[in-house]
Amino acid sequence: MAEARFDVVGIGSAIVDILARTDEGFLADNGMVKGTMALTTAAQAKAIYDRMGQAVEISGGSAANTMAGIASLGGKACFIGKVGADKLGEIFAHDIKATGVEYDGGDPRLIQKPTATCLILVTPDGQRTMNTHLGAAMELNTADIDAERIAAAQVTYIEGYQWDTSGAKQAIRKACQAAKGAKRQVALSLSDPFVVDRHRDELLALIKDDIDILFGNEDEIFSLYQASDLEGAIARLRESRVLASMTRSAKGAIVFDGQTTIAVDAAPVAKVVDTTGAGDLFAAGFLYGYTHGRDLAHCARIGAMAAAEVISHMGARPETSLRELLVKHGL
Amino acid sequence: MAEARFDVVGIGSAIVDILARTDEGFLADNGMVKGTMALTTAAQAKAIYDRMGQAVEISGGSAANTMAGIASLGGKACFIGKVGADKLGEIFAHDIKATGVEYDGGDPRLIQKPTATCLILVTPDGQRTMNTHLGAAMELNTADIDAERIAAAQVTYIEGYQWDTSGAKQAIRKACQAAKGAKRQVALSLSDPFVVDRHRDELLALIKDDIDILFGNEDEIFSLYQASDLEGAIARLRESRVLASMTRSAKGAIVFDGQTTIAVDAAPVAKVVDTTGAGDLFAAGFLYGYTHGRDLAHCARIGAMAAAEVISHMGARPETSLRELLVKHGL
Repeated sequence: MAEARFDVVGIGSAIVDILARTDEGFLADNGMVKGTMALTTAAQAKAIYDRMGQAVEISGGSAANTMAGIASLGGKACFIGKVGADKLGEIFAHDIKATGVEYDGGDPRLIQKPTATCLILVTPDGQRTMNTHLGAAMELNTADIDAERIAAAQVTYIEGYQWDTSGAKQAIRKACQAAKGAKRQVALSLSDPFVVDRHRDELLALIKDDIDILFGNEDEIFSLYQASDLEGAIARLRESRVLASMTRSAKGAIVFDGQTTIAVDAAPVAKVVDTTGAGDLFAAGFLYGYTHGRDLAHCARIGAMAAAEVISHMGARPETSLRELLVKHGL
Repeated sequence: MAEARFDVVGIGSAIVDILARTDEGFLADNGMVKGTMALTTAAQAKAIYDRMGQAVEISGGSAANTMAGIASLGGKACFIGKVGADKLGEIFAHDIKATGVEYDGGDPRLIQKPTATCLILVTPDGQRTMNTHLGAAMELNTADIDAERIAAAQVTYIEGYQWDTSGAKQAIRKACQAAKGAKRQVALSLSDPFVVDRHRDELLALIKDDIDILFGNEDEIFSLYQASDLEGAIARLRESRVLASMTRSAKGAIVFDGQTTIAVDAAPVAKVVDTTGAGDLFAAGFLYGYTHGRDLAHCARIGAMAAAEVISHMGARPETSLRELLVKHGL
């Protein structure tokens, strides 16, 4: 097998986040389910935005955040996802490249839709509630997947979110085939409990056939297996023969390799400002460690460190060099 | 005199800030003068942006920041300034309105230029260095000044920055006349030492004829009067017959009412993250106090409190309710 040009290539929605602080009442008044992601039409997005407070715009997108995290740790990452031919598309492309990630977004001039945005409401407890308008991100299709690029990465990382778009789903299937053909690994992030609920059977089949590494939080993994406790979920994970990482917010994370369960504490955070990107950055730290030959406990500790950085400020991209944190923490 | 509908109406450039952390070397390599504002062409802005790191986008603009601060304190503010018919224009308009400021931007569909952006480099010491591409903000002209709106505000607040644009300068002169005609007051922020240097004679004449309240930092006021020390500057301020407020970074501020000099300490800040907007928010706090009948020392203390909030995070708009801080600090 040729040496990998990338540690990880991520495939996902290229999104610019629009984040505003709010209170619990706003979520209730607007029928939002705290901590989850809802897809919106352009009209719904406009109505929410009109009611939202002053915001900040920060590049986001789940897999893109993970790739930015890997690059910040010093790893080699590539991101595949589509933006529109507009200002937010320029901003997304600038930011992902500025972090050191190779960006493969095709030609935005061929896209008629606006760059995807995610309206994120952050409550005083730091929890984020997301409303995504996919726009240009929905245009991802099999033509965007370069099999050689996939074969050049140790791990291909895909978002569960992509299951909401039929073209993207086909693109992901092509990427899985390319990875398998090159004897590379495929990682899946479950993304959101509602995504899991909408596409449970397809995701279970995908995991069985193609996935080597599974990322999810408790809600997502319990929902996937319709399990009611940790033992039930682990029994099902054992059947799935995946390396699984389950994040548990302040309780840390559990990694299960088919035989052994490793629990890792959450890294300390002075104040949880905004949980957006916590799972994405955990995956970044984990995959950086994994593609650099660290043991599983070590991988999870790097993940916890990266997640702790990203929840200490607004936005889902690291504000400080994770490479420097890695050195500082002796990881 | 009719009761004022607004405490303050601000006139200035409607700008979306694009902020990235950098190091001292970047400023040197790109010929930037730390702590100042440079105007750029579209091509220069693109070249800087291409070299800048990952950024965040936050609405800005000096006078707009001041109006947002007044609204956050519970005051009634209005902002006049122009955006283009584009995404950043929508973002600017959303944010200023979401803070509770009345926004009078005319019809952006009539503007052919892109919304103004300011590329802001923040060094590890928290100092900001700005590169502004004015675009649509340059389109401000006398037709945008509604004399009744100006007459409806206790104070009209103008940016020295506007002196770089001839149309805007005429708009400001019209606003000054409208304010004087209605027996209202006019405040001027000097904005930047280079702006003062470029337009010293015109600014001195304006101050003499039309300005009641002058805001500036030490560099700007010393540059205005070509003074080399505080005594020299105060002697010239006395001749100018203005109420003057001079901010001095960590040394606090000095207020001079023509007879008495009042010194106020800077409010404590755990960590200076980004000084962008410090002067704008000092002016916001001062003018809120001034239009609510507080004595000058009190006005300056509210200014110091508002400035301390805004330098504790990225971006030039308050992140927390200044009204709540006001209550908390018993001001």
